[in-house]
Amino acid sequence: MSSETLTPSEPSPPIDASNSAEPTAAMNAVADLTLNPSEPSPAPALALSKKAAKKEASKLQKQRRKEESAAMKESAAAADKGPDLLAANYGDVPLADMQSKAVTVRKWTAIGDLDEGLKDKEVLIRGRVQTSRAVGKNIAFLVLRKRGFTVQCVLTVAPELVSQDMVKFAAGLTRESHVDIEGVVSVPGEPIKGASQQVEVHVRKIYCISKAIPNLPINIEDAARSEAEIERALQAGEQLVRVSQDTRLTHRVLDMRTPANQAIFRVQCQIENVFRQFLFAEGFVGIHTPKLMAGSSEGGAAVFRLDYKGTPACLAQSPQLHKQMAINGDFDRVFEIGPVFRAEDSFTHRHLCEFIGLDTEMEINEHYSEVMDVVDRLFVAIFDSLNENCQRELEAIRKQYPFEPLKYLRRTLRLTFQEGVQMLKEAGIEVDPLGDLNTETERKLGQLVLKKYNTEFYILHRYPLAVRPFYTMPCSDDPAYSNSFDVFIRGEEIISGAQRVHFPELLIARAKECGINVETILPYIDSFRYGAPPHGGFGVGLERVVMLFCNLNNIRKTSLYPRDPQRIRP
Amino acid sequence: MSSETLTPSEPSPPIDASNSAEPTAAMNAVADLTLNPSEPSPAPALALSKKAAKKEASKLQKQRRKEESAAMKESAAAADKGPDLLAANYGDVPLADMQSKAVTVRKWTAIGDLDEGLKDKEVLIRGRVQTSRAVGKNIAFLVLRKRGFTVQCVLTVAPELVSQDMVKFAAGLTRESHVDIEGVVSVPGEPIKGASQQVEVHVRKIYCISKAIPNLPINIEDAARSEAEIERALQAGEQLVRVSQDTRLTHRVLDMRTPANQAIFRVQCQIENVFRQFLFAEGFVGIHTPKLMAGSSEGGAAVFRLDYKGTPACLAQSPQLHKQMAINGDFDRVFEIGPVFRAEDSFTHRHLCEFIGLDTEMEINEHYSEVMDVVDRLFVAIFDSLNENCQRELEAIRKQYPFEPLKYLRRTLRLTFQEGVQMLKEAGIEVDPLGDLNTETERKLGQLVLKKYNTEFYILHRYPLAVRPFYTMPCSDDPAYSNSFDVFIRGEEIISGAQRVHFPELLIARAKECGINVETILPYIDSFRYGAPPHGGFGVGLERVVMLFCNLNNIRKTSLYPRDPQRIRP
Repeated sequence: MSSETLTPSEPSPPIDASNSAEPTAAMNAVADLTLNPSEPSPAPALALSKKAAKKEASKLQKQRRKEESAAMKESAAAADKGPDLLAANYGDVPLADMQSKAVTVRKWTAIGDLDEGLKDKEVLIRGRVQTSRAVGKNIAFLVLRKRGFTVQCVLTVAPELVSQDMVKFAAGLTRESHVDIEGVVSVPGEPIKGASQQVEVHVRKIYCISKAIPNLPINIEDAARSEAEIERALQAGEQLVRVSQDTRLTHRVLDMRTPANQAIFRVQCQIENVFRQFLFAEGFVGIHTPKLMAGSSEGGAAVFRLDYKGTPACLAQSPQLHKQMAINGDFDRVFEIGPVFRAEDSFTHRHLCEFIGLDTEMEINEHYSEVMDVVDRLFVAIFDSLNENCQRELEAIRKQYPFEPLKYLRRTLRLTFQEGVQMLKEAGIEVDPLGDLNTETERKLGQLVLKKYNTEFYILHRYPLAVRPFYTMPCSDDPAYSNSFDVFIRGEEIISGAQRVHFPELLIARAKECGINVETILPYIDSFRYGAPPHGGFGVGLERVVMLFCNLNNIRKTSLYPRDPQRIRP
Repeated sequence: MSSETLTPSEPSPPIDASNSAEPTAAMNAVADLTLNPSEPSPAPALALSKKAAKKEASKLQKQRRKEESAAMKESAAAADKGPDLLAANYGDVPLADMQSKAVTVRKWTAIGDLDEGLKDKEVLIRGRVQTSRAVGKNIAFLVLRKRGFTVQCVLTVAPELVSQDMVKFAAGLTRESHVDIEGVVSVPGEPIKGASQQVEVHVRKIYCISKAIPNLPINIEDAARSEAEIERALQAGEQLVRVSQDTRLTHRVLDMRTPANQAIFRVQCQIENVFRQFLFAEGFVGIHTPKLMAGSSEGGAAVFRLDYKGTPACLAQSPQLHKQMAINGDFDRVFEIGPVFRAEDSFTHRHLCEFIGLDTEMEINEHYSEVMDVVDRLFVAIFDSLNENCQRELEAIRKQYPFEPLKYLRRTLRLTFQEGVQMLKEAGIEVDPLGDLNTETERKLGQLVLKKYNTEFYILHRYPLAVRPFYTMPCSDDPAYSNSFDVFIRGEEIISGAQRVHFPELLIARAKECGINVETILPYIDSFRYGAPPHGGFGVGLERVVMLFCNLNNIRKTSLYPRDPQRIRP
């Protein structure tokens, strides 16, 4: 878009409302300009000290502005009389002024805090230029964005306040540039559709603190567009830009700025918060295990290998062995949040080569259901918290990527693997009762469970031993099965867990059966010879939880800088 | 120690009090055995429902025990009459009984919960055998440990309750084995010095659920011994085992079990908790940046290189570039907790090849002091929280590794680098005003600051530009200096921070000056062309914070599984 200015008569693309200036409301509001900005508006009785502080700040601000203005006028006069007497009120901020020159008394108001309570007040705000446009030579509209909030700013030529050159400067600001604006808050007569804040800022000064290049590789409004919008436009004969997933990732810094992406990563952070706080409250200790390991982790081909000061090493495929060793080291209940590395060649919608593992391990008294109990309560707590505390974020995601709220029960459904196989059988799908489910049968079972139990979150346990890792405890009544479980959201696996073998002899036998060289995991094996309590645990992929809770179609949407077999940048 | 039994007349080594059975108190308590265990003790009036629940549980337990006992007797009878009629009351639990056989009504009481309120109650407890010993053929003492709590358990031969074989079995249990004990709680007349809990358990049944090998590579009591204790013994002519740091790390799972280590990693977790909660409350979002990077991270030799599906790659030396890109991606304020990889050959007390970085990055309005403000309040909050909430842990650490509480001010002292240089000069130490401080001068300056300002935590800012990374913003008034800071605890650096360059042209120029190939960091450079707010941030090494807060002498003590140039195991 750059310095090109749109006139209102030009057909504007049907973009997301929060992403464009709304000229109608804005133009109605121009009348407000005649209000005296220095006239104080009545403040609420309860905010006396705040009011006093504001008054003081305002006084200091005025004083500073007076000095600044005097200095500017002086320099302008010295500079052989510039073409615009108001030149000091706008322009690009030079580097030297951005290098922590001084701590001043200036107070920035957050865009999200701009509301009717600030009517007629002078404010200083900072934000990105989401849109800028001139209406003729005398009026310019900007939408400023910060932290997901947007506000409309208006420049109207007025003697000694706003010059035509200033309007031109503002309208010519490239999208995504950063600006500081000083202005007066006004409240238009009708709702503002083009911005989140229901006030306008009438610009007195505008300084660009960081210029964006005119031709961005992707436009935020294009990246923020929903598929439905593109379809609707297509039916109306209009072709809108669709930004591919790959292009988004290549220009991730721009893609990140969409409301949906801002929300996705806040949801991710919230999941982590609840995970951590819930477990901490239940006596778990957060630990960190090394990602650099000698040998080949748990074995298998899917490891990244490297040289560690002359020793062959690899990146941990999971904290499995080290978290179990922490249990053998008396930590009783541990969790870890950290990266997990898989050199798999799976180029699917749900595999990454690096993702964040949420791992737990805990002593059990007598049964692996104690681990499932933690899964149950933990995830219900996570889902509840998202629904309660992240409504704004979920709404932002839903706007671009519509999804139905996750159906889950207050007490999580548990089915045995055999029950699952039986349900599939009854639906005409034969699966090997001692094999694993594939992605397709998992999804099918998810549909059957949803239909029968009205939940999209459930636990499937007692998996065949043959499809589980060597450290999984076999069942006592049937060694073909194991004390293990997977957990599903919307028909896709997100959690694997189990009771672990804590008898060193059985552990060695199982490792050998699974083709693992026991020598490479000797410190792990040895830790069970020093007395080992019965224990179990589980691991979750953080990105998958976000993806499936929000029913997103690609795990790359929930990783800030995803790594897959074809991508290691940016 | 293993199955060898000590008699009280043998000289026992002067070990940590909490680590040994205290025979005197225990023997006084033997009289309590005559109490009728089924006689209910008066329960507090306020705990009616709990009492009822306990009664119910106790009833069910008795019933179960009756059934169990009957079954055992039957099988014992079938087995051609065993030598001990009480054989069902002790022994090794077979594997099959540890494989999640059933969910029963058994309730385990935590060792830490054993107190006088449980007097005369039957309890089921689980823990590690910290010590076991026989006194003659009729009495055995055990100390059981769990979650840092210990309790003394006593077996005394009595008809139909405890046989000599049972005493022999208990006394023969290897240290660090796990056992389940059913017994009756009694309160001895005088304080128990040998255990944390001031009650004893009179054993009725004892089952070993996991045997430790008889000869452990290190004994916990040796690993838990303080240097002072070893010195004291030496002066008394006795040589006690001193476990070297390297031996500890090789057998880390055993070393972890010392009270000090249990505490160190709980303190570490608490630091992380406060870091996260404090920043979250201040509007920061927790993010995760990739550890796998194309090219060579920030440059330099100290990177681990690997092959990523045919692309040369490396492990991130810090989340620096990606966290700044998240700021350019509109996240405003971010933090990250994650591993950081340094292939440095530094074999010092304070360097690791893999450690946990606590990183932040935030937009600033006008000055890097805004970043220092966050450091100030965040770390005062962390220190306060440790002092308030981790008293028990700090005490446990202090017992083995004595240290003085950290001296810090309510508002953190800030000195400029030049002021620091001047202080050193006045103390007769000349340093290059445009160079860096070395470890020795840092330590010296720490002493001078402590003397003058009475604080061991302070910020030194405005470092010479030449000693800071290319992305550091130069000072506006003197380009030889920079808007940067380091933070020190007890004379050692723990934090580096700065305002960053957000002008792409200057960034490129600075990168070139520092010999960095701009091509390798192009996505990072480009992100500043899309509009970049002024920002700054800092990075902290988690292990260093723990080490210096507790004045430990080696960073390997604060990493669960440390990685240094000579160690990648376990």
